[in-house]
Amino acid sequence: MNGDYGTTFPRLRDAAGPVWAEYTRHAFVEGLREGTLPRAAFLGYLVQDYIFLVHFARAWALAVTKAETVEEMRTCAATVDALVNTEIGLHVKTCAEAGLSESDLFGAEEHPANLAYTRYVLDAGHSGDFLDLLAALAPCVMGYGEIGARLGQDVAEGHPFADWIATYAGEEYQQVCREVGALFDTAVARRLGPAPEATPGWARLCHRFTTATRLEVGFWEMGVSFG
Amino acid sequence: MNGDYGTTFPRLRDAAGPVWAEYTRHAFVEGLREGTLPRAAFLGYLVQDYIFLVHFARAWALAVTKAETVEEMRTCAATVDALVNTEIGLHVKTCAEAGLSESDLFGAEEHPANLAYTRYVLDAGHSGDFLDLLAALAPCVMGYGEIGARLGQDVAEGHPFADWIATYAGEEYQQVCREVGALFDTAVARRLGPAPEATPGWARLCHRFTTATRLEVGFWEMGVSFG
Amino acid sequence: MNGDYGTTFPRLRDAAGPVWAEYTRHAFVEGLREGTLPRAAFLGYLVQDYIFLVHFARAWALAVTKAETVEEMRTCAATVDALVNTEIGLHVKTCAEAGLSESDLFGAEEHPANLAYTRYVLDAGHSGDFLDLLAALAPCVMGYGEIGARLGQDVAEGHPFADWIATYAGEEYQQVCREVGALFDTAVARRLGPAPEATPGWARLCHRFTTATRLEVGFWEMGVSFG
Amino acid sequence: MNGDYGTTFPRLRDAAGPVWAEYTRHAFVEGLREGTLPRAAFLGYLVQDYIFLVHFARAWALAVTKAETVEEMRTCAATVDALVNTEIGLHVKTCAEAGLSESDLFGAEEHPANLAYTRYVLDAGHSGDFLDLLAALAPCVMGYGEIGARLGQDVAEGHPFADWIATYAGEEYQQVCREVGALFDTAVARRLGPAPEATPGWARLCHRFTTATRLEVGFWEMGVSFG
Repeated sequence: MNGDYGTTFPRLRDAAGPVWAEYTRHAFVEGLREGTLPRAAFLGYLVQDYIFLVHFARAWALAVTKAETVEEMRTCAATVDALVNTEIGLHVKTCAEAGLSESDLFGAEEHPANLAYTRYVLDAGHSGDFLDLLAALAPCVMGYGEIGARLGQDVAEGHPFADWIATYAGEEYQQVCREVGALFDTAVARRLGPAPEATPGWARLCHRFTTATRLEVGFWEMGVSFG
Repeated sequence: MNGDYGTTFPRLRDAAGPVWAEYTRHAFVEGLREGTLPRAAFLGYLVQDYIFLVHFARAWALAVTKAETVEEMRTCAATVDALVNTEIGLHVKTCAEAGLSESDLFGAEEHPANLAYTRYVLDAGHSGDFLDLLAALAPCVMGYGEIGARLGQDVAEGHPFADWIATYAGEEYQQVCREVGALFDTAVARRLGPAPEATPGWARLCHRFTTATRLEVGFWEMGVSFG
Repeated sequence: MNGDYGTTFPRLRDAAGPVWAEYTRHAFVEGLREGTLPRAAFLGYLVQDYIFLVHFARAWALAVTKAETVEEMRTCAATVDALVNTEIGLHVKTCAEAGLSESDLFGAEEHPANLAYTRYVLDAGHSGDFLDLLAALAPCVMGYGEIGARLGQDVAEGHPFADWIATYAGEEYQQVCREVGALFDTAVARRLGPAPEATPGWARLCHRFTTATRLEVGFWEMGVSFG
Repeated sequence: MNGDYGTTFPRLRDAAGPVWAEYTRHAFVEGLREGTLPRAAFLGYLVQDYIFLVHFARAWALAVTKAETVEEMRTCAATVDALVNTEIGLHVKTCAEAGLSESDLFGAEEHPANLAYTRYVLDAGHSGDFLDLLAALAPCVMGYGEIGARLGQDVAEGHPFADWIATYAGEEYQQVCREVGALFDTAVARRLGPAPEATPGWARLCHRFTTATRLEVGFWEMGVSFG
């Protein structure tokens, strides 16, 4: 299931080492899978994730400003649109069912783990170039893709987190991952040539990717702490 | 026809003084209206305008990163999407009919008048806040709306620029102007309160708006120079 | 001792409420004052603070790009220079005495509390204007000024943290605080007028200031965790 | 005289082709050399160049935010400081002798050629990485170094532009060029490796450098137009 997000992503993932599994097989994720995650942890996570998506959409919009081709702009602009008009809407709906309005969500105090992650990604873009930003964006996009694909393989009827799992296991989200993977490959080929791992810029991309992955672990830790 | 783009825009337009008419009633515009604009001027303009739209879309994407509410993000993201997926496409189509491919367009050398305008708008965003950026974006959006509305009132059959005029006179584009006008009004009320003209920030917005309008005049001058 | 950092800072500090004391009278600070802070906590803090200063200098450089007057540019540029050429040097010297080279410092892994704080400040600048950035910069500058002034009142001979205390209690650092305070007052008057607290922008500045103060608390917590 | 600004600069200069001579041997420059440039052209240029330096200093400050090493930060910060505290001061002094105050200078309307150049450089930084920004900054820094070195070889007593020539011919400015040249070489080696011309990124740097050089030509054209 991991082979279709392009070739750059798996190289960066493998270079990240064990932190990738710490993220994608975190206790929070296993709690989602088994249905044992406390409701309070899930809701606390959702509220923070709403704020996360706002800033993640800002980071994809920053990518539009740093693209070098119209094709790159189109993929990034479509991702911004999907985030602010679809994915955020799912959070609003789920939270509304739990009695939280969108203004509750938008006005919630951001957790430091959330600030650390989102602002790090934005700064990767501001301080570096398009690839730096993509490397910081990739762990969330593709990590959720891997988690969704794995958890979606076996969801019993009445599973308490079936909706969440279906979102990331679903074809629509998996297609986003494939498109972002293709965008990343094309962007890397354009800027670093056919052997990116042999260029001086590769270590910087690995560092960006690994740092963002570490911050994903921190985000799950935050989620657990709400439980 | 000028009353429906909100209240902030007409105040800034009136504060700009005669330069607004120099822009919206420029010889290039009158040449479009009368159908007398040399074809070379029109095509040279279209090529530069394609590049303009690329950077204008980048500026609207920057606005997404500087928005303070999800509603502001949504309007700006929709505008980015309309630019990169619709308006740019119109230029590509018109230019293709004249034998110019999209890669010809993307690879054309940017004219200094184009660089001056687009990079000024982007810098208005980077150096200031959301309102600074909107004030620099507004003259293009609404000026083309006014021009389109005026020129669209009387287009004879077989008019050589009927397609161009129809684009900006059309309901779809006029709706964009109304939405941007409403966005601007709400954003100003949120940040400057109910009497924005009495705040110290107002002079800065007027300066941004007027400078961008001057740069629109320079853009038409460039177009004329191609004829 | 708190009256000479201008008038904007104390207003924001008072609006922040109890979190200001949580920051300036944190257990880490009291450990510095009493000389009881574990050496490991101090050194761990110094390493992270070196990285902090690198990004804090970047944020002051961002302020140069967002200034509206040459005078504003000069103060911000002088602060960047003081940070990269003096304050960072002090950390290098202290750490060298403990056997840590500058490349050890620069290459240390950033703690999430550090990422959260520094990237939040940078994003305050990128998403907002000059005042947003100053509001996020002020808690560190002036908080250390207050802490230094208080701790410097009574330092026994041989105090283990005498050098650190002397840096922030010293006339040179206190002068920086007064200059930044004056810069902030002038910048606020220029942009928000004579009654800034009555403008819609004030709440945003309070929010920036308070969030940065919360993140200072997190930074001390990180320091304690190294002990 | 051209050999001591490092190795990256001459490669980019040579790749730029004839536009480099159009810039460094422009009629405006020859008028300075021969002392025949109309006073009005010189003063008009100085006023615009004052505004240019303000934005050029902003661009060097942006470079501080995009640096990857403390050494890079130090050189860029020192350049910002030299610009806002020394070079701008020279313009203020020369203009004061001609009856223009600093507030006249700061408040002057920016010429489109000035907007095009400065905002292009800033956008090179925002859209790209540290190297993109340096490539856009280099033509001004080193071009003035070459011009100063050439014009300084033979300045008769009482030459009307002796002060201007002495500024750029002087050891202090030449030293800045050598330091920026060394910074550029080190930054390129760090990011593109030992054979930068063979990397995909090289064409982008050439394009940045050449565009900025074209905009320098436009700046001299503006100066001539004031005469």
